[in-house]
Amino acid sequence: SLRQSSTCTMSASLRLTWPCISSKLSRACLHLETLLNISFSDFVDKQTGYTTKNILAAPLMNGKDPLGVVMAINKVGGNEFSKADEDLFTKYITFATVIALQHYTSYMYNVESRRSQVLQWTASKVFEELTDIERQFHKALYTVRTYLLCERYSVGLLDMTKEKEFYDEWPVKLGDVEPYKGPKTPDGRVTDFLSHLNVSASRTPPVDHWALVSGLPTYVAENGFICNMMNVAADDYFTFQKEAVDESGFVIKNVLSLPIVNKKEEIVGVATFFNRKDGKPFDEQDEQITEALTQFLGWSVLNCDTYDKLNRTEWRREIAAEMVIYQTKATPAEVQQILNTKEKFDMNPEDCDQREIANIPEAKDVDLLLFSFSDLPVSELDLIKCGIRCFFELGVVEKFKVPAEVLTKWMYTVRKGYRDITYHNWRHGFNVGQTMFCLLQTGRLRKYYSDLDAFAMVAAAFCHDIDHRGTNNLYQTKSTSPLAKLHGSSILERHHLDYSKTLMAEESVNIFQSLQKRQFETVQHLHDVCIIATDLALYFKKRTMFQKIVDATEPMADEKEAIAYVSNNPIRKEIIMAMMMTGCDLSAITKPWEVQSKVALMVAAEFWEQGDLERTVLDQQPIPMMDRNKSDELPKMQCGFIDFVCSFVYKEFSRFHKEITPMFDGLNNNRVHWKELADIYQAKVDAIENERKRLEEEQAKKATGEDGGEGGKSKTCTIF
Amino acid sequence: SLRQSSTCTMSASLRLTWPCISSKLSRACLHLETLLNISFSDFVDKQTGYTTKNILAAPLMNGKDPLGVVMAINKVGGNEFSKADEDLFTKYITFATVIALQHYTSYMYNVESRRSQVLQWTASKVFEELTDIERQFHKALYTVRTYLLCERYSVGLLDMTKEKEFYDEWPVKLGDVEPYKGPKTPDGRVTDFLSHLNVSASRTPPVDHWALVSGLPTYVAENGFICNMMNVAADDYFTFQKEAVDESGFVIKNVLSLPIVNKKEEIVGVATFFNRKDGKPFDEQDEQITEALTQFLGWSVLNCDTYDKLNRTEWRREIAAEMVIYQTKATPAEVQQILNTKEKFDMNPEDCDQREIANIPEAKDVDLLLFSFSDLPVSELDLIKCGIRCFFELGVVEKFKVPAEVLTKWMYTVRKGYRDITYHNWRHGFNVGQTMFCLLQTGRLRKYYSDLDAFAMVAAAFCHDIDHRGTNNLYQTKSTSPLAKLHGSSILERHHLDYSKTLMAEESVNIFQSLQKRQFETVQHLHDVCIIATDLALYFKKRTMFQKIVDATEPMADEKEAIAYVSNNPIRKEIIMAMMMTGCDLSAITKPWEVQSKVALMVAAEFWEQGDLERTVLDQQPIPMMDRNKSDELPKMQCGFIDFVCSFVYKEFSRFHKEITPMFDGLNNNRVHWKELADIYQAKVDAIENERKRLEEEQAKKATGEDGGEGGKSKTCTIF
Repeated sequence: SLRQSSTCTMSASLRLTWPCISSKLSRACLHLETLLNISFSDFVDKQTGYTTKNILAAPLMNGKDPLGVVMAINKVGGNEFSKADEDLFTKYITFATVIALQHYTSYMYNVESRRSQVLQWTASKVFEELTDIERQFHKALYTVRTYLLCERYSVGLLDMTKEKEFYDEWPVKLGDVEPYKGPKTPDGRVTDFLSHLNVSASRTPPVDHWALVSGLPTYVAENGFICNMMNVAADDYFTFQKEAVDESGFVIKNVLSLPIVNKKEEIVGVATFFNRKDGKPFDEQDEQITEALTQFLGWSVLNCDTYDKLNRTEWRREIAAEMVIYQTKATPAEVQQILNTKEKFDMNPEDCDQREIANIPEAKDVDLLLFSFSDLPVSELDLIKCGIRCFFELGVVEKFKVPAEVLTKWMYTVRKGYRDITYHNWRHGFNVGQTMFCLLQTGRLRKYYSDLDAFAMVAAAFCHDIDHRGTNNLYQTKSTSPLAKLHGSSILERHHLDYSKTLMAEESVNIFQSLQKRQFETVQHLHDVCIIATDLALYFKKRTMFQKIVDATEPMADEKEAIAYVSNNPIRKEIIMAMMMTGCDLSAITKPWEVQSKVALMVAAEFWEQGDLERTVLDQQPIPMMDRNKSDELPKMQCGFIDFVCSFVYKEFSRFHKEITPMFDGLNNNRVHWKELADIYQAKVDAIENERKRLEEEQAKKATGEDGGEGGKSKTCTIF
Repeated sequence: SLRQSSTCTMSASLRLTWPCISSKLSRACLHLETLLNISFSDFVDKQTGYTTKNILAAPLMNGKDPLGVVMAINKVGGNEFSKADEDLFTKYITFATVIALQHYTSYMYNVESRRSQVLQWTASKVFEELTDIERQFHKALYTVRTYLLCERYSVGLLDMTKEKEFYDEWPVKLGDVEPYKGPKTPDGRVTDFLSHLNVSASRTPPVDHWALVSGLPTYVAENGFICNMMNVAADDYFTFQKEAVDESGFVIKNVLSLPIVNKKEEIVGVATFFNRKDGKPFDEQDEQITEALTQFLGWSVLNCDTYDKLNRTEWRREIAAEMVIYQTKATPAEVQQILNTKEKFDMNPEDCDQREIANIPEAKDVDLLLFSFSDLPVSELDLIKCGIRCFFELGVVEKFKVPAEVLTKWMYTVRKGYRDITYHNWRHGFNVGQTMFCLLQTGRLRKYYSDLDAFAMVAAAFCHDIDHRGTNNLYQTKSTSPLAKLHGSSILERHHLDYSKTLMAEESVNIFQSLQKRQFETVQHLHDVCIIATDLALYFKKRTMFQKIVDATEPMADEKEAIAYVSNNPIRKEIIMAMMMTGCDLSAITKPWEVQSKVALMVAAEFWEQGDLERTVLDQQPIPMMDRNKSDELPKMQCGFIDFVCSFVYKEFSRFHKEITPMFDGLNNNRVHWKELADIYQAKVDAIENERKRLEEEQAKKATGEDGGEGGKSKTCTIF
């Protein structure tokens, strides 16, 4: 029989094989004489008063493993067992082995099936509850409790936070307060349980709880051992409560306590199991099952840790997002710069009539309706006013009840959202919005769209490059910026879109605040379409689709037919819209030469800056377009850009609506200028090349004349 | 024997019990006559040519479950089995049952122990690899492959992203491209495998892979069934490769395919197992083990999902954090406002001498060294200059090689970090920094500290309330702001600290950029101490510690002794430092009455604004201090605040260093003023109360006089 006493077994240490047999008693039929040689223990004789004289013993074997021993003691009517006794005994052993083996196998089957049940159910619960390690453990243990075959269990969780407050440390460091000298986990944490789960108890950890007072869980937390207390009554190392722990009459008989260890090998808690259901002490199999369980629970702490990290990161993101909004939102003083309601009307902007306070230039006054409009002579502040004017001209301010204050604040906030970079700054943002306004009004594309569409399209155009960083999508990818990690494609465009939607979510700057839910969803969808459309990588995908629409509408004599063809089909509307965005984004190329020549340099300068970054930060050679050493080739590259990208857009738009022809004309005019410059440069390059060739030939001639023999060799020297 | 053919069993459907026996054949010893009644099948006879004439059969039972059947066929030398045959047969059955049971139990033990091994090892791997579902599955399967007893396995993973691009949808919506009509998962995803894992194959999914071409994995992904193909050769529903799949000669014989389903009941992939090791078809136990495995893998997708979410949130946080820095960092134009290097020196600020460009008022000119300094007459821009001046006066700019440009940019950025709120704005931030400067210089506390300490302390003081929102910690908690979720205690202080550290991490504004690593760590630690110290909730904790230091140094005649006592003990230095921060933070209360009376109103106004928010947003009654309806009680509350909080600080500091007495004097002077106002208000209240009482008594008298009987009642009416 198993020795009943308290033993502590280390998790990794060797254990006695079940059932507990001295290995010396195996593999042979033994007589007492032999037994004496292996030092016969008279322990049982002393206990019982019986006198063992002789023994006939044989092991019950499962292959090479002993299952048990059968012993015949004290031959009746003789001094020792005879050969005949031995033969009979051996025959009996054969059958006894079958029975013992069946008993053993079925016990092990039960153990293994309980273990797999425990694991499967624990897993099921662990992946259900991520939020809270206590709930997770509680759920898992409650679910598998029937497979553990114990009367009670308890789980203590240690505090995993290692943060300390200065104020609590100071008195210790000054020597005014004794430092903590009690038990600690191997990694130095105090082993006080942060919380304590019990089937029948609450989750708060009462220090004098019967499951904790013994000191065993603390000992396990301190040492990381698996402790199997086989006879609590006989134990005096720990202070188990001897009497019933509560009115149920429950008395602690035997205890199995295991550390819960996470994947980082830190002890996170202790699970303790009390009183095996059949009254026997916990055995090796119980240890195995509970170890599998606690191991699994320990690993699953990772789920909660990750979830906790996720939450903390999300809160930090929210904090930063709020700060961005606070820092970029137009201040009341800035709004006043534009509305001047205080000076002009001595009233709150909210209280005055929309039209009245729109003290912004009339669209016609500043050529806002012309494709050839140039922002260059206009100040950035006035461009904000011009932006606001566009919405008044569209008639959407009154129709969609946009408070002038909100519109002003939104427009100013959009302006502040643009960074002060070389090209993709507020001026570019404004120009794209103004061109969208022109395409709708002057280009008469508005007839296909509702007022709400037009409102959303112009708003999206103003926002389309907000918070641009002066580097393109490829640079984001190559520098593995967080933007590139977040967005798989159209990296910057998705960021501009996110930004524009953030503004819609901020009530005080939300120009769409008076819309109904469905209208608001439409606006959001149109922002998706319009802003993503400015990714030039997608341009070639939509080219043919756009051309088909133009082809289809061209022969239509009746304008109404064309309107119906487009406006009754949301996809056609979107395709044209997307191409309009491209037309707006590239519109600088259609501006009068004196504007285009300046703007093209700004675009190029930003490219060159990126090229510089590629060289310095990424240690890469930039493409010619971004290489400032190849700036002389700009005119040639502009010609290529016009021919392969821009020309199609404005040609097709001019074919679609003849009102848009001025853009195509502007483009062609610029093409002439760039070609001229490219030719001049090419002429220079050719002249230099010719000069080089001439010198080379001259040199070669000289070399041949002076030094005929080594001509080949000296020629090489001369050239390089 | 088991019928070998292809059968599809639904995951939840009933299965045949092992081993496959007709339930009609149990619980009795049967003769052929009886068998005929239950429609004897001549299938085997037809196959073998043998003629079954009579059968003696008995079941082998495990309790109520049949394990098998023993049959004796065709009685030799007779027409049927006799009673004696039956008796003998029954005896034999008893022993056969024992053997069959042992065989069955040991088989089931093997199954269960494989299952628990599979679960335990899968768990071990699943919690090791969070980053990538493919790696996670691959690791787990590779680890448990020996327990699966199959020759090969393969796992196909479905694409879980449901995002679609407009541009790919448009041609479909326009009818130019046929919509997808192939197999789909129950939740509508295309069942193409995103990736495909195989022990011997790479991870990229080749469409014609032998494990996929059969169409079985797609079928499983589409229907979610567990499919056990017991005889691939006989199957014609799927197109399994009949010949060897590769040069190893591996031929598919039987296949078990299961869907991998996550906790949201979505099919995320398909696991397929090929050829049971012993050549037999997969049985119910194999299904159970692989089902446990796939179920577990499916659940564990959660780990990767959470990890993925964590990453995306982190990237969003990084994006927002960069935007905050961009938006708050002083621009070159703003730096120019202060340095004017262009106009004055026509040079880059980096190139000029530190002292030369510090065109900021001398400290003495603007009373920066006086405790009574008032910011009220100074513009916010000039306060930035004054802030910069403090560092020059401390002598730390040259000593720690702080470029004037960086210092200016930092100071301006700190200013921009403060929000334009009623009290906790840049002016307050500046005042705390200036008071720290005064305490060190004028108050002569500097003698205990190193130059680096002084540098860090003044910098921390300037930053101590950066990005304050005008509401206190309790409001953060009550409104469950992200700040409160992130920080358990000293909520706002930890945020100010985070912000100040963000500035240290941004090279272009990092005034500590020239420090060595250890010095930099000291500066960070001092920021921790100083900024957290401004949480008034911690004030009472440090009071006694500070008082003890003052008590200890007071009797010291020799200054050197006191210096050694403090500066040789880092904790004492920190305690004094922490109390200095409190002294700075509350210093408004020590200012000349004309300043204090104005500032106190600003503090109060901010409190009232919070009170308003509590009423409107939180729907709670504010405490009297924040209740604007109780604004009359301000003088009284100021007296209380002086007596219970402030008085100790300045009294002890004056006792510590007599140079600080002006602050205590200022405080006491203000105490007199507030008391006066409080008394005046109290006199008013008393007068009203007396008047009320007088009227009441008069009324009561009248009532008694006029209407003695109902006096009590009418009195009540009169009062209210």
